[in-house]
Amino acid sequence: MSANSVIPSTVNADLQKERDGASFNTEEFAVWFAGGAEQLKFKRDVKEYMYKDIDHAAFSQVEYMSHEDMCEFTVKNSINVAKKLRRLQSERNPGGTEYWPTCFDGPELWGLHKIGNPFGVMFVMVVHALKDQCTPEQYEEFGRRVERFEVCAAYSQTELGHGTYLRGLETRADYDQDTDEFVLNTPSITAYKWWPGGLGHCSSYSIVMAQLYIDGQRKGPHLFYVQVREEDTHEPRPGVHIGEIGKKMGFLGVNNGFLGLKNVRIPRTRMLMRHAQVNRDGSYVKSPVDALTYFAMVHTRCIIARNMSLLLAVGATIGTRYSAVRRQSPIDPKLPEPQILDHVTQQLKVFPEIANCVAYRNACNYLLEFLNTTSRDKDQGNYERLPELHSLSCALKVLCSGDATAGIERLRLACGGHGYLTSSNLGNLYVNATAACTYEGENTVLLLQIGRFLMKSWRAAQSGAPLAPTVSYLAEVQQNPEFGVWTGSWENLVKAMQFAAANKTRIAFNSLSRRLANGLLEEVAANQTGIELTQAAELHGRAFVLYSFLSEVTGAKSKTRSSALNRVLEQLLELYLVNVTLNNMSSILRVVPLTDADLSKLQVRLETALTKLRPDVVAIVDGFDFNDQQLNSTLGSFDGNAYERIFDAALKAPMNQKSVPRSFHEHLGPFMKSNI
Amino acid sequence: MSANSVIPSTVNADLQKERDGASFNTEEFAVWFAGGAEQLKFKRDVKEYMYKDIDHAAFSQVEYMSHEDMCEFTVKNSINVAKKLRRLQSERNPGGTEYWPTCFDGPELWGLHKIGNPFGVMFVMVVHALKDQCTPEQYEEFGRRVERFEVCAAYSQTELGHGTYLRGLETRADYDQDTDEFVLNTPSITAYKWWPGGLGHCSSYSIVMAQLYIDGQRKGPHLFYVQVREEDTHEPRPGVHIGEIGKKMGFLGVNNGFLGLKNVRIPRTRMLMRHAQVNRDGSYVKSPVDALTYFAMVHTRCIIARNMSLLLAVGATIGTRYSAVRRQSPIDPKLPEPQILDHVTQQLKVFPEIANCVAYRNACNYLLEFLNTTSRDKDQGNYERLPELHSLSCALKVLCSGDATAGIERLRLACGGHGYLTSSNLGNLYVNATAACTYEGENTVLLLQIGRFLMKSWRAAQSGAPLAPTVSYLAEVQQNPEFGVWTGSWENLVKAMQFAAANKTRIAFNSLSRRLANGLLEEVAANQTGIELTQAAELHGRAFVLYSFLSEVTGAKSKTRSSALNRVLEQLLELYLVNVTLNNMSSILRVVPLTDADLSKLQVRLETALTKLRPDVVAIVDGFDFNDQQLNSTLGSFDGNAYERIFDAALKAPMNQKSVPRSFHEHLGPFMKSNI
Repeated sequence: MSANSVIPSTVNADLQKERDGASFNTEEFAVWFAGGAEQLKFKRDVKEYMYKDIDHAAFSQVEYMSHEDMCEFTVKNSINVAKKLRRLQSERNPGGTEYWPTCFDGPELWGLHKIGNPFGVMFVMVVHALKDQCTPEQYEEFGRRVERFEVCAAYSQTELGHGTYLRGLETRADYDQDTDEFVLNTPSITAYKWWPGGLGHCSSYSIVMAQLYIDGQRKGPHLFYVQVREEDTHEPRPGVHIGEIGKKMGFLGVNNGFLGLKNVRIPRTRMLMRHAQVNRDGSYVKSPVDALTYFAMVHTRCIIARNMSLLLAVGATIGTRYSAVRRQSPIDPKLPEPQILDHVTQQLKVFPEIANCVAYRNACNYLLEFLNTTSRDKDQGNYERLPELHSLSCALKVLCSGDATAGIERLRLACGGHGYLTSSNLGNLYVNATAACTYEGENTVLLLQIGRFLMKSWRAAQSGAPLAPTVSYLAEVQQNPEFGVWTGSWENLVKAMQFAAANKTRIAFNSLSRRLANGLLEEVAANQTGIELTQAAELHGRAFVLYSFLSEVTGAKSKTRSSALNRVLEQLLELYLVNVTLNNMSSILRVVPLTDADLSKLQVRLETALTKLRPDVVAIVDGFDFNDQQLNSTLGSFDGNAYERIFDAALKAPMNQKSVPRSFHEHLGPFMKSNI
Repeated sequence: MSANSVIPSTVNADLQKERDGASFNTEEFAVWFAGGAEQLKFKRDVKEYMYKDIDHAAFSQVEYMSHEDMCEFTVKNSINVAKKLRRLQSERNPGGTEYWPTCFDGPELWGLHKIGNPFGVMFVMVVHALKDQCTPEQYEEFGRRVERFEVCAAYSQTELGHGTYLRGLETRADYDQDTDEFVLNTPSITAYKWWPGGLGHCSSYSIVMAQLYIDGQRKGPHLFYVQVREEDTHEPRPGVHIGEIGKKMGFLGVNNGFLGLKNVRIPRTRMLMRHAQVNRDGSYVKSPVDALTYFAMVHTRCIIARNMSLLLAVGATIGTRYSAVRRQSPIDPKLPEPQILDHVTQQLKVFPEIANCVAYRNACNYLLEFLNTTSRDKDQGNYERLPELHSLSCALKVLCSGDATAGIERLRLACGGHGYLTSSNLGNLYVNATAACTYEGENTVLLLQIGRFLMKSWRAAQSGAPLAPTVSYLAEVQQNPEFGVWTGSWENLVKAMQFAAANKTRIAFNSLSRRLANGLLEEVAANQTGIELTQAAELHGRAFVLYSFLSEVTGAKSKTRSSALNRVLEQLLELYLVNVTLNNMSSILRVVPLTDADLSKLQVRLETALTKLRPDVVAIVDGFDFNDQQLNSTLGSFDGNAYERIFDAALKAPMNQKSVPRSFHEHLGPFMKSNI
């Protein structure tokens, strides 16, 4: 901060008071939340190294720039991050990958990619896809160049007119046996590749998903590696129409691009041939296992779910700290205006989001372990749990992205007008979260896929076949459809959600069966049952998050934690269970015999849970361990000097650098004079 | 459009097919929705005149500009709109006000204020406040100058640290009897005025809300008219610290400002003295009726509610048309990919929003009539229905802004990735809608006020006092607390929502009474009952919207409409009632005896309502009668050429005007070379 800054060097007294009054040790919470002491230390080391010489002044002006300047700034900035991270890797562990590229696009460095990382997709997806889909020779020839950042490459799949339905993609690659080449074409406007991150200005290569044609015969979508710009001049290659798709709500610096191809020829060896092949003579070898292609998507969705739980945690940190330092509207008229954290309606906006991100972070930990196990199984040719992993990763991707979006919006509104300021960062968090509801599998489409998995599982259970662990409760409910006694215990609340999910699954299954019995095609029947299928899928996902949170808090691991930490986790669990139960009450009431008195008791429990958490919320969000650069928010900084930071940010706005704006002399002044 | 445009001059065939297949006359719907043939004609005339020579090319580039250029563009542009509108007024009806200033910031001209109107607040609020609060002499002296646009003035109330609670404002105006002046000060950072639209760069005057002090004695908040910049040079006046508050999520061209005052002296006669006065000798005359001050706020909230219902209608138009032209994912595998409008899950995203905006538009019509009646009563000294109007305007402001925000978000997500493009305009609609959840009375604060009104009404009903018409159902439920038979008729659904609202009111009342009986202060008890109070308030608002929609569709006015129009309105009503009922089922189930079979029937009715509306949705949104400039969306234009428009907009993006971006030569190219 500059010497003449208005920002005090002390911590806001209201915030300090909260920290001093917490019932547990924030550091112990932080270790738990990070997944262990080593993980926490690693993250902190990376952050210390990477943020220490950040140019705050330049960063604070990015949102005021023109689109072109934003794009330029982001390219320059992300390259600097890459350089620095590679230096860190070579200093600490040459030849390793835990810093570079692993951390390049990870949550620890979000604060360094303020408006996106144009090379994020390249290291999150392109390099992985090349490793998965290239033959070893291909990877040596062109894959490794991307890995080394000698060239820049994008991943082009979605088209202007085609997204969800891969078989509908229009881009085609026709094999020309005479020249041993593929000829690529996007035969219409709707066939243009649209959206790939980094494609617009940065990439000279792209993986391109196209329909393979041999002798005019269609072989379905395959991946090709296509040069789209000259390496030395960066000019588009002949037949290539490339550019950016224009401004979006967020990811302002990521140059999402479009790509049109007109008779672009590439050698046959530029089809990614690890799993399927086209030989010199035009003979075609099909991929042996489809799952190998979709495993990459499963991996990506798990990462998205984890990231969304952390994005919500960033929002919760900002909302909680601001609610501790903002004072407004008396409760007791004899006392000064209280911290807004003391208004019960404010607590209901903020505290459930703290519980949500903790519950989701926990569910994602389980998911990531499951992913690792299944990944090892897969490498040994065992694909048994892949459908279950696929379904669970879809469920958590949907819930984490959807609820992070809604939660961040709620937290922003909880910050009143100031939450609307760009400098609060809540708007930026929101546009990042909501994008994840659409990319890498649109949420409704994923819910329908989960719904199909539930239908299969329900049918399997009916025939007595064993079910995958995360759906085994369906068989139990099928056998014992009576819920039994409502006790309101945590186990009982989890069971209630499982019964609600099973009941909705049953309802959807019956609707589907009835439609099939009436002679409808399976796909038509599934479409008509779409609403119930998505409802069942959502409840199924919720039941899993409830169950895994309960297991974590009350299971064996609780013995490794202090009683103070266990107590606060139990309070988060109580709030989470009661709140989610109330929010899904209409589904629960259809199958669980709750009386009006039971419902009143739940409402009391909700209010009690808020009151009990009240003294600990600031310490909890401190335990998420985000630094000020990750939060990037005038409202949420560790020192709680929110007003001074809002003020300081305003003074630095470009139009406040001169006393009279150009528009007065040129437009407003002359106009008003003409009215006199 | 330019000659080399990729946009066809024909209408998309899928969209045309929808129009041809509609069951009713769109024009008749448009007349109904606009409130009559005359109103529709007036709106169309204004739009034709105002949009005919709009500079599309300039407008399409605004979002790519730097903040400074955006602000400049907006000032220039809004002045042009003002000039043109005044010309229209003088051509059509010199001396009238129906065009200028009435239409200046109205929905008809939204398309001309793409990123906000920096002079909107001036004509929506400042001129009205001056008229209401000035003595006739004051109005002649300085009010009329604002009305004539000879000077620019803002309305400064909210402070950096103070919003909701007016009595907590820190800005003070001390009367100095020696010089017959007020001395204005913002004694701290948190006292700075913060947020007023147009204050940052445009205004040389501002109404300032400040605590009046006479001889050190506090008299509460009053309004003062303060010069903040020199008229000729526009330089800030001595003691005035003025500027803009920096970038926000939306309203990018509105220069929301801050204002610090240090011993700024104004003549005593610059306090707005129509209702309260300070005399030369320092004697103080209090305002006779507080309601006179808050009536202006009531008026503003009614307008906001109406605008939000229309903003949602804009979103619904875009979402519906795009869903008609986008084809994706087969339903019947033997057929081509269908319009996404045929996917039932898509119907559930889009159709209820169409019904919502129609229901809200209708409720706001009732509200605006109620406002007019009450306004006339008030002018005759009759304030009887003011509390009811206040409560209803709060309820509709809350519901319309909250549901418009959620609905626009849902519609945007229904448009997939392309909804995320700035050129879709859905992001801009969203930031406009969500801002209204906070400004002019934060929604939760308003719900608590409605809650208090419900508590008073419940207590009055208990004592047998008559209730205002819009809460009279509370007394009925109190007298007959048994719901009776569930029939599922429309009347029955409305009654169910009223019972749910009354039941939640009863629960909140009992909780509050219990807390009071336990010795809590009323304010503390109200805070602790906050959650139930807001729930009751929301249900009360919903019951009103249901009731007024039912009345409109089935009431006497139905005889003035064709049976075809009545049928489509009935279908909208059916969808609206069933959907809102299902969404509030957990509250309804506590008091209405629905069986599981009844719930299944409602689900079938929901799906049936979607199916029945399917052929008419495009014609309905056509009947909202927005032109392409108002929609301002590549996805939603009347011709349905969505892909071509997205494509065209991308080609016009500034960075697509050269083949290689600067960043390649300066940053990316050298970096990649260094890696080889």
